[in-house]
Amino acid sequence: MSVTAARGFTAAGVAAGIKGDGRPDLALVVNTGPCRAAAGVFTSNRVKAAPVRWSRRVLADGRLTAVVLNSGGANACTGPAGERDTRTTAEHTARLLGVDPDEVAVASTGLIGVPLPMDRLLPGVDSAVAALGPDGGKAAAVAIKTTDTVHKTAVLRKDGWTLGGMAKGAGMLAPGLATMLVVLTTDAVVEAGELDRALRAATRTTFDRVDSDGCMSTNDTVLLLSSGASGTVPDPGEFSAAVRTVCADLARQLIGDAEGATKDIRIEVVGAATEDDAVEVGRAVARNNLLKCALHGEDPNWGRVLSAIGTTSAAFDPDRLNVAMNGVWVCKDGSIGEDRSRADLSGREIHITADLATGAESAVIWANDLTAEYVHENSEYSS
Amino acid sequence: MSVTAARGFTAAGVAAGIKGDGRPDLALVVNTGPCRAAAGVFTSNRVKAAPVRWSRRVLADGRLTAVVLNSGGANACTGPAGERDTRTTAEHTARLLGVDPDEVAVASTGLIGVPLPMDRLLPGVDSAVAALGPDGGKAAAVAIKTTDTVHKTAVLRKDGWTLGGMAKGAGMLAPGLATMLVVLTTDAVVEAGELDRALRAATRTTFDRVDSDGCMSTNDTVLLLSSGASGTVPDPGEFSAAVRTVCADLARQLIGDAEGATKDIRIEVVGAATEDDAVEVGRAVARNNLLKCALHGEDPNWGRVLSAIGTTSAAFDPDRLNVAMNGVWVCKDGSIGEDRSRADLSGREIHITADLATGAESAVIWANDLTAEYVHENSEYSS
Repeated sequence: MSVTAARGFTAAGVAAGIKGDGRPDLALVVNTGPCRAAAGVFTSNRVKAAPVRWSRRVLADGRLTAVVLNSGGANACTGPAGERDTRTTAEHTARLLGVDPDEVAVASTGLIGVPLPMDRLLPGVDSAVAALGPDGGKAAAVAIKTTDTVHKTAVLRKDGWTLGGMAKGAGMLAPGLATMLVVLTTDAVVEAGELDRALRAATRTTFDRVDSDGCMSTNDTVLLLSSGASGTVPDPGEFSAAVRTVCADLARQLIGDAEGATKDIRIEVVGAATEDDAVEVGRAVARNNLLKCALHGEDPNWGRVLSAIGTTSAAFDPDRLNVAMNGVWVCKDGSIGEDRSRADLSGREIHITADLATGAESAVIWANDLTAEYVHENSEYSS
Repeated sequence: MSVTAARGFTAAGVAAGIKGDGRPDLALVVNTGPCRAAAGVFTSNRVKAAPVRWSRRVLADGRLTAVVLNSGGANACTGPAGERDTRTTAEHTARLLGVDPDEVAVASTGLIGVPLPMDRLLPGVDSAVAALGPDGGKAAAVAIKTTDTVHKTAVLRKDGWTLGGMAKGAGMLAPGLATMLVVLTTDAVVEAGELDRALRAATRTTFDRVDSDGCMSTNDTVLLLSSGASGTVPDPGEFSAAVRTVCADLARQLIGDAEGATKDIRIEVVGAATEDDAVEVGRAVARNNLLKCALHGEDPNWGRVLSAIGTTSAAFDPDRLNVAMNGVWVCKDGSIGEDRSRADLSGREIHITADLATGAESAVIWANDLTAEYVHENSEYSS
């Protein structure tokens, strides 16, 4: 159902020939109203793709009618020609829909530094507009895949209103958003300012705490559109919680489909003096290649967790650190704890708890293991 | 020749049985004088191994007579028992040599979180003392190897004095020092303060700019000992340059032997506003797993360089960045430059130049590619 689970939205996904292998590569999501409120969160990478620059600008007024997304090319680091291609895509889509180009957001994903084949992309938009329908959510979710092995959607039904969404992302997942494109839609009546607050609060503790490989994309985009078609005005707290739930669901799906990964690693930092400290430590652990290799080998090598913690500026005493792996406290007071052979890491999901023994704050970061398959996939991506 | 190239030093390397596979694992370096001046630089990881804590303390007075080093165990995160083991090692060595324990530095490398087998290590010290000789430099260099495939030494002969050294390190190489143990010796007459200045200046631009896998060790130790046996007082500038030359030589050897690596990557950042900016950008590029995979595949994927630069706080305009790979400017003004297929990355050494087009400062960081062999080696290290 994805982006068409909520009333007031149509969508489509088509094969425009951008990818070159015949797979679907162009998606369109249209808000049929009556409201057109929208909010967005974008990559914090300072090198931003042309579609990110465009979409940030057109979202300034908190209003969107459509989102056009393509896989098969990031349109990043493509200079003024790339900016032109994004604008042309928005203008072409807007003309077909009979709206202003400033109501059309654009999102792209794929290889950086390669121009988009506009001669195929624009006819693809024509096909997508022709294919728009209230059941197009799944096709749209499929069309935004790159190295994703599965399409990713989530739906939450509340009393009188619905929130749904789609996501793509399988690599370059790191704080500041993963290489992800996400479109969320709701038929709840919510004005743009509240959409923005709910989306920022949700991404801060979901997509921003997913760290597959430490790499930050130039194209990350998360959009939230409200059609208001349910006529229901939700409680702000309940709406915010719903956005967080759907974002967390999609973020977990991203980690579960990360390139080459065989393990999903939940790193929970507890006993921190501040939430920032907990996040800093969680990210340092999440990005430690040696630990990621050890966990791939199902080796409870907690020394690598301590090495990683030691690189941070978080408040802690090295002689008071505690680490558990799948519930076994293999490190106590910065030294040897329970028998490490008792930590069974054979399952897909591994839980690491790092206790800084300093305060009461905590945070959870999700990561993946590092595998030969990840190396393989990313050695050959552009060739 | 290594640590015994300079006059006034003896050394030995023996198999104490710490490793369990019969390979040499204990090294001893003794300064026979007449001077005993020494300086050291240690890991900036806040989780420091017991031998690092000990050696920092005994070096406070700028005087050392001996260094005892073991591979086969890092003695890190081993609590008060680990501290005792280090002190016992120093005391035992000191007693055999007839000196004060505070004149004996200790360095350890290997797995974190495992107690040292003192029942084998101490008899190993006995054997090493018995084996001490003016030709023991090579045996010492061999005994400190862990996953190193070759032992690493360097010697520089100047007018009337000599500087030599040995190093070990093949993984967990990152700023703040690599997982390395380095002992440098000189027969030049140099007091401790000058040794310290020369060593800090040299490590700042050599060992601290090697980044094999982004991981920082708990045990990094670089020591510089002067025997003064040549009777020659060198020019301070010349001495400092010599220390830098030998450190750069050993650092390059470390990168050349990094775990599983097939490429040595020289990242030169130019056009930076400050040297700090250049180093920050160089490290971000060096640590980008996606780029490291691409270079392993000999793919000039410059978009991943720009992605990495975009995560830094360095001064630059994204639309003015330039990137060259082996001399081909594949990215100009933040966009597509010369034909990327002209960049031949088939050799072992790859040169990346990142031009921030902002100022006149620069820095060089050395890194490696990311390979399936790295994953393999580090999935099985402790088992």
